[in-house]
Amino acid sequence: MVEKLPVPFHTQLCSSSILKPKLPFKTLVSHNLSKFISMSSEPQNPPMEQQQQHEEQEEGSTQSKKAAKKEAAKLEKLRRREEKSASGAFAADTPDSLAANYGDVPLEDLQSKAVSGRKWIEIANLNEELKDQNVLIRGRAHAIRSVSKKMAFLVVRERGFTVQCVLSVAPDVVSLQMVKFATGLSKESYVDVEGTISVPKDPIIGASQQQVEIQVKKLYCISKAVPALPINIEDAARGEIEIEKALQAGKQLVRVNQDTRLNFRVLDLRTPANQGIFRVQCQVENIFRQFLLADGFVGIHTPKLIGGSSEGGSAVFKLDYKGQPACLAQSPQLHKQLAICGDFGRVFEIGPVFRAEDSYTHRHLCEFTGLDVEMEIKEHYSEVMDIVDRLFVAMFDSLNEKCQKELEAIGKQYPFEPLKYLRKTLRLTFQEGVQMLKEAGVEIDPLGDLNTESERKLGQLVLEKYGTEFYILHRYPLAVRPFYTMPCSGDPAYSNSFDVFIRGEEIISGGQRVHVPEFLATRAEACGIDVKTISTYIDSFGYGAPLHGGFGVGLERAVMLFCALNNIRKTSLFPRDPLRIAP
Amino acid sequence: MVEKLPVPFHTQLCSSSILKPKLPFKTLVSHNLSKFISMSSEPQNPPMEQQQQHEEQEEGSTQSKKAAKKEAAKLEKLRRREEKSASGAFAADTPDSLAANYGDVPLEDLQSKAVSGRKWIEIANLNEELKDQNVLIRGRAHAIRSVSKKMAFLVVRERGFTVQCVLSVAPDVVSLQMVKFATGLSKESYVDVEGTISVPKDPIIGASQQQVEIQVKKLYCISKAVPALPINIEDAARGEIEIEKALQAGKQLVRVNQDTRLNFRVLDLRTPANQGIFRVQCQVENIFRQFLLADGFVGIHTPKLIGGSSEGGSAVFKLDYKGQPACLAQSPQLHKQLAICGDFGRVFEIGPVFRAEDSYTHRHLCEFTGLDVEMEIKEHYSEVMDIVDRLFVAMFDSLNEKCQKELEAIGKQYPFEPLKYLRKTLRLTFQEGVQMLKEAGVEIDPLGDLNTESERKLGQLVLEKYGTEFYILHRYPLAVRPFYTMPCSGDPAYSNSFDVFIRGEEIISGGQRVHVPEFLATRAEACGIDVKTISTYIDSFGYGAPLHGGFGVGLERAVMLFCALNNIRKTSLFPRDPLRIAP
Repeated sequence: MVEKLPVPFHTQLCSSSILKPKLPFKTLVSHNLSKFISMSSEPQNPPMEQQQQHEEQEEGSTQSKKAAKKEAAKLEKLRRREEKSASGAFAADTPDSLAANYGDVPLEDLQSKAVSGRKWIEIANLNEELKDQNVLIRGRAHAIRSVSKKMAFLVVRERGFTVQCVLSVAPDVVSLQMVKFATGLSKESYVDVEGTISVPKDPIIGASQQQVEIQVKKLYCISKAVPALPINIEDAARGEIEIEKALQAGKQLVRVNQDTRLNFRVLDLRTPANQGIFRVQCQVENIFRQFLLADGFVGIHTPKLIGGSSEGGSAVFKLDYKGQPACLAQSPQLHKQLAICGDFGRVFEIGPVFRAEDSYTHRHLCEFTGLDVEMEIKEHYSEVMDIVDRLFVAMFDSLNEKCQKELEAIGKQYPFEPLKYLRKTLRLTFQEGVQMLKEAGVEIDPLGDLNTESERKLGQLVLEKYGTEFYILHRYPLAVRPFYTMPCSGDPAYSNSFDVFIRGEEIISGGQRVHVPEFLATRAEACGIDVKTISTYIDSFGYGAPLHGGFGVGLERAVMLFCALNNIRKTSLFPRDPLRIAP
Repeated sequence: MVEKLPVPFHTQLCSSSILKPKLPFKTLVSHNLSKFISMSSEPQNPPMEQQQQHEEQEEGSTQSKKAAKKEAAKLEKLRRREEKSASGAFAADTPDSLAANYGDVPLEDLQSKAVSGRKWIEIANLNEELKDQNVLIRGRAHAIRSVSKKMAFLVVRERGFTVQCVLSVAPDVVSLQMVKFATGLSKESYVDVEGTISVPKDPIIGASQQQVEIQVKKLYCISKAVPALPINIEDAARGEIEIEKALQAGKQLVRVNQDTRLNFRVLDLRTPANQGIFRVQCQVENIFRQFLLADGFVGIHTPKLIGGSSEGGSAVFKLDYKGQPACLAQSPQLHKQLAICGDFGRVFEIGPVFRAEDSYTHRHLCEFTGLDVEMEIKEHYSEVMDIVDRLFVAMFDSLNEKCQKELEAIGKQYPFEPLKYLRKTLRLTFQEGVQMLKEAGVEIDPLGDLNTESERKLGQLVLEKYGTEFYILHRYPLAVRPFYTMPCSGDPAYSNSFDVFIRGEEIISGGQRVHVPEFLATRAEACGIDVKTISTYIDSFGYGAPLHGGFGVGLERAVMLFCALNNIRKTSLFPRDPLRIAP
């Protein structure tokens, strides 16, 4: 179904905007590294760089563009010299009787030519028990080191795991030409390696599989990478602490800045930290689903294309829908409530949410993944908070238990402290929060909203007093909540609503909704909304509506804050912000 | 996060287009039924009705508009008479010492006033073991029958389960006024009922909980439904066979047509069949996820906002992205392949897919939920077909086992035969398929595509010969596949691709992708695509690309065909087609 449309497909691919700076394939191959890796504190590509700079200053470095060019030229010279010396005295270019044991696999052999029955073993599974056995692995040429013209080391990487492969000239097994072929491989190329497992005296420091090596017998290149990669994976994977320590020792290590990473996301995603981040994200979603399914919720999909033109705000992406005005859903709010009116009892949705806001902060995106919940309640919005409480404690527990490796990989590059949370989530009323801030000398409007700064401050105070970085703040002033929020019984200045905070930042918003159509119309009017524009929404509650409430979480934000990352772009696979719609 | 934006929210709600015909709330309340339920074979709301009519003819009925009006007027008269008689000789309107035991709950008591500690029992859990116990239930007034002024029956429904509640005048428990209040409830209103479980001599035929009744002591209305509902749930839930049998007996039963259902989807969703359909859909997604997660796949989310303008086709929804041309993703094809180049190995995505096509068929939507898979392969696209095979057999098994109740509910309204499938999925080459058709007298171009008709015919032939309604057809002609499809090794007229069919209709499309950038550019050119417009996509394979392949499934189509439903609009919660963007 999905692939039946060859013609319009290419229209999805952006022409100029995916790649910044835009380079045709051929150019890219030979392009100098310095253009991509920001070695300068000067913004290079305004306005994108300028905007990012503000947030990403810590990722800039101070070496000048000129110096980088010089450095690259030097490296190129060195590489050529090495190449020359390898092919020097010995005739590595002459015909080789062992030629069938290595080389580039021709395209026709990669076109599903046959099912050979060969078995590849995962690099992660290589260990001493396989000593002297013949193995076949596939992975990337992660690092290549030429020891002499007769010997080379090739570190092969497969999904974060690496193994050292040894090419050593031996009669009828490895020729000089084969060693040359190995040392000529470009980094990140895909290779098949066949060889015998050996156990070295000392553990291999440069590989994840430290107890074993592979004595190579065959080496084929499946897919070549361009020789000059725009990002070096080693640079992209470098830990913050290593960079800082080097700086203190007066040494400048390359730090790939955020925009460069995102421009070449395909390379950036290969770092252990990024492999970890998106596996953690997947697990957050899994737990969200599994917990809710076990609690009687039904997973639904509501439309993202919404009829009607945008009158109220610029924060909506508008489009033409077959001649009718339409826009992209800013949240599944309307339709998840309709699903409740449709008797599904408890529903959740995981799907994209679109916000056309001009937010250039570390925590806003124009497109993110919303985790949404809506449910019948019997009498109190605390029933919704109960779900939040149990769901998130279960989630944090599970992440800490099941994603240890991933969290470690993330922490290695971006060090962070594990999240502090209580077995039973703390609940404070908004008024209590205001009082805590007041006592700490921060005066805020008791009927206004918290700004980012006061949210952070309150987060600190709560951590000091209650020992948790995860808590619920509820009974918000009615004036700062959406019109569909149910006011408190007998106290209409406040509302049956809540926000949830992780490490001083909001990640969840929720509450009880108004389910009485006449009252909903009154509330909409009071908020300055033209009731006519939302008549269907209001009418839907006229067919008998359950008491209900719900909440929404941003998936990227949840992962960012759990791992104490400094930018939501780190937790979005291909982020979209006001300046970025590529790749 | 999701709910922080009160102002722009209302812009999401469509003004005029959600409700067709559009009616303000007040009007709706008193509106005559006949406007909504098509009792006429004449299309009433062209062009929407006209277009639908073609497909939905079976849902029309022949009673005239006039007759429907007359019928509604008669019912109203009857209702008034009953009301009058109930309040007649006895003073049902006089003050009542038992007034606290029934009535409309005031709004302030529904605003999370307090946590009372009361326990509601689910109607599904009511049984004889609870005899003589006091219970509290909440649900909809499903049916109300006044026996006399002293007695009434109220059937209460909660998520498909119903129980009969008896109101019988008794000193200090039930007053005449309370009985009157009960009979005055509008259908679909939400009520709280408190009473004692009794076990009747004979099972209650009109309720799902046939062994018990509730002797009502208290009755409160939580939320009133408008008295004249645009759809009667009983009509909407009526089985096809019942309607046919009645027709044969010369009796005309109301059959709610598809458009009316969709206009008032909130009511339509309450039928047992619809409750079943969307629970089955949720389960399809669950199995898809669980199976793939267990097989080492990572769930990802790729952007739906794609940079670049649409040059190639009208099938793309275009929009303005902060001053840049952009469009909505027609599939996650590009980005799921990028994720593979980013070393995730095996990925899947569940998310919306947007197609601006002018397709008015029973199986096309402008927005649907795509289940997408992309994975590294070692050497052959059969590795992808292996996943399809195991995944779908597991899915069908699980649906038949775990969704019995739901499938029964669907089948009760829309009868269908269980899907016939083999333990090991049949694989035929395209050429074999062409040959089978040829032998059956159907000549088709061996290097062209199958049309809907020949797909159906082949489905029949395969069922007859192999006894399966689920099979894979592979090695499609290259010319009919997207440019990124890998041609067959040594046979470039064919490609390493496949489609999968259920009951003669295509639901899955997949294959091996071209992973060599130079060759990809050649293929794009050969397909008439301007390579410059897809340079980033092509360049991404220049950083070392794994051999890979994948497939895409339409969730709504999978559910439709598994249940042999006749229209994809039945399996989309709020469908979007060229004529519908509401509600």
